[in-house]
Amino acid sequence: MNEQVKEFREYREAMNEKLLAGDNKVIKRIFNLDTNTYMEGALSTKVKEMLGLVSSMVLRCDDCIKYHLEKCQEQGITNDEMMEIFAVANLVGGTIVIPHTRRAIEYWEIINQEA
Amino acid sequence: MNEQVKEFREYREAMNEKLLAGDNKVIKRIFNLDTNTYMEGALSTKVKEMLGLVSSMVLRCDDCIKYHLEKCQEQGITNDEMMEIFAVANLVGGTIVIPHTRRAIEYWEIINQEA
Amino acid sequence: MNEQVKEFREYREAMNEKLLAGDNKVIKRIFNLDTNTYMEGALSTKVKEMLGLVSSMVLRCDDCIKYHLEKCQEQGITNDEMMEIFAVANLVGGTIVIPHTRRAIEYWEIINQEA
Amino acid sequence: MNEQVKEFREYREAMNEKLLAGDNKVIKRIFNLDTNTYMEGALSTKVKEMLGLVSSMVLRCDDCIKYHLEKCQEQGITNDEMMEIFAVANLVGGTIVIPHTRRAIEYWEIINQEA
Amino acid sequence: MNEQVKEFREYREAMNEKLLAGDNKVIKRIFNLDTNTYMEGALSTKVKEMLGLVSSMVLRCDDCIKYHLEKCQEQGITNDEMMEIFAVANLVGGTIVIPHTRRAIEYWEIINQEA
Amino acid sequence: MNEQVKEFREYREAMNEKLLAGDNKVIKRIFNLDTNTYMEGALSTKVKEMLGLVSSMVLRCDDCIKYHLEKCQEQGITNDEMMEIFAVANLVGGTIVIPHTRRAIEYWEIINQEA
Repeated sequence: MNEQVKEFREYREAMNEKLLAGDNKVIKRIFNLDTNTYMEGALSTKVKEMLGLVSSMVLRCDDCIKYHLEKCQEQGITNDEMMEIFAVANLVGGTIVIPHTRRAIEYWEIINQEA
Repeated sequence: MNEQVKEFREYREAMNEKLLAGDNKVIKRIFNLDTNTYMEGALSTKVKEMLGLVSSMVLRCDDCIKYHLEKCQEQGITNDEMMEIFAVANLVGGTIVIPHTRRAIEYWEIINQEA
Repeated sequence: MNEQVKEFREYREAMNEKLLAGDNKVIKRIFNLDTNTYMEGALSTKVKEMLGLVSSMVLRCDDCIKYHLEKCQEQGITNDEMMEIFAVANLVGGTIVIPHTRRAIEYWEIINQEA
Repeated sequence: MNEQVKEFREYREAMNEKLLAGDNKVIKRIFNLDTNTYMEGALSTKVKEMLGLVSSMVLRCDDCIKYHLEKCQEQGITNDEMMEIFAVANLVGGTIVIPHTRRAIEYWEIINQEA
Repeated sequence: MNEQVKEFREYREAMNEKLLAGDNKVIKRIFNLDTNTYMEGALSTKVKEMLGLVSSMVLRCDDCIKYHLEKCQEQGITNDEMMEIFAVANLVGGTIVIPHTRRAIEYWEIINQEA
Repeated sequence: MNEQVKEFREYREAMNEKLLAGDNKVIKRIFNLDTNTYMEGALSTKVKEMLGLVSSMVLRCDDCIKYHLEKCQEQGITNDEMMEIFAVANLVGGTIVIPHTRRAIEYWEIINQEA
């Protein structure tokens, strides 16, 4: 597995464990909600993951972007679709989203090569 | 037409005109881009309008939310679908999105009654 | 009751009802969490309400600020304590927090006169 | 004087007084700093007011925008210059800055007519 | 001393020195204010540091979070209290705060082991 | 060339290429606009680069800050002028801008030594 992907996933998992070990009800329930929100519903998981990704981009959270890129890849989102998500994010959020889009395209390529 | 909708649209149009009358190339092109971004492409306009809406919600821009609610309504987005967009926005963006969601649900109801 | 307070509370309650009537599980659970988070725990409700207020101020959400000001008033927070919360918010968040602090001081005075 | 301008200035002044009456040293010093920062220095007040305005625009604070528009008007900033400040703000900050730019152009016109 | 802690502190100190060497009055006074704001007053330093931490978390500034975690540790804040601060931050600020909370729990553990 | 500068420029260029290779019209036009916005006009490029820098600082985008620092250096902005831009950014945006200012002063020194 690519080193960047491996590192991201391992750190994420290890720290989530630490956080949940803190045994705080609110934090646990936020983590549960995070899983439930993206489940199939009136909207498909595919669409919801796109919503999660674009939100992460305009809010400029690199780790959230990586996470949703992985989910989008699992949902079979194509390269052209991804470019249009990037376009909305950069239009609405402005050029300050560009550096995050650079890191996003790098990660998007890596996880598509892995697949 | 409902007073809130009318006022929003008229003010929006009048001020856009003033802005474009300033004859600044960059501003004009941003306005053009704003139209082009949401056109049918690899992703449907319907999906793109959802992306625009959720971005506006997490960035907490009431006028942008109203605008995309109108576009979502034109695209035939159902009430259940809208609730799931609201859910993603409030999960990702946190409870500070709630007051904007209150104003969104009010406007969403109004424009659906108008239709 | 003061007109501004009355309007704020009534609109808030009416729109929360509409939102919850949408019957979306995620939204309902976020609302529940919102109540549970501020309950007595390792930290007192008083301290947690201050945390909620300062967060709302630096994120510049006027309605969230009003809500937490009401809760802080119920918790017996004094005027001097409030000024110090304002100070942290304006230092950390910068002068763009000042207009929100102006609206906060107005509301804080009103709800203290009501009490 | 135009009603919108009058209301903005009077509310601002009245609430600043209330805030300063709270007699909190940190808040007082932030207010002082706010005055000193824009004084003539290595950069002219004119340039600094433009910096203050564009910062307020990308951070989307309407009251801060109004305040700096007034200061820019006092500094003799022309309409074409203002349009270019708007352009930078909307490019860097994205289309979520547009609604704030609509309110800015309205206020900018009013204060120029007053002058 | 732990490498991450050492690096953070040394870089912070070295760059603060460079910044203050720039001999700009406004910057110097902001640095002074930053110290004064968290002093004992109507609110204890302990509570103020919690306010500073939660503000840094919802604004998602990793270095600010580290700084306030150190101060909170000096103030004897317990693990359970810290979890409740994390809970407020993640509820108010949304799931985009989670990656910052992961880095926070890592740093919190390190500085508690150092102590 | 300094390693940090080299790395920043190479990564930026390589990823911009990847992004543009995606052949999305909106993204291409945003990149074009980004160039046009800072050209000489009613305002000089020098002033516009300062506007771009201060916007990037209050929005806390380190890569955007580096980019505009390079442009400001090319425009002959002095150290004292830079300190005053930093002052406005830290006043308006608050102390959460300080860590970004620390990284800015480091990069500013490096590119001035290179020159």
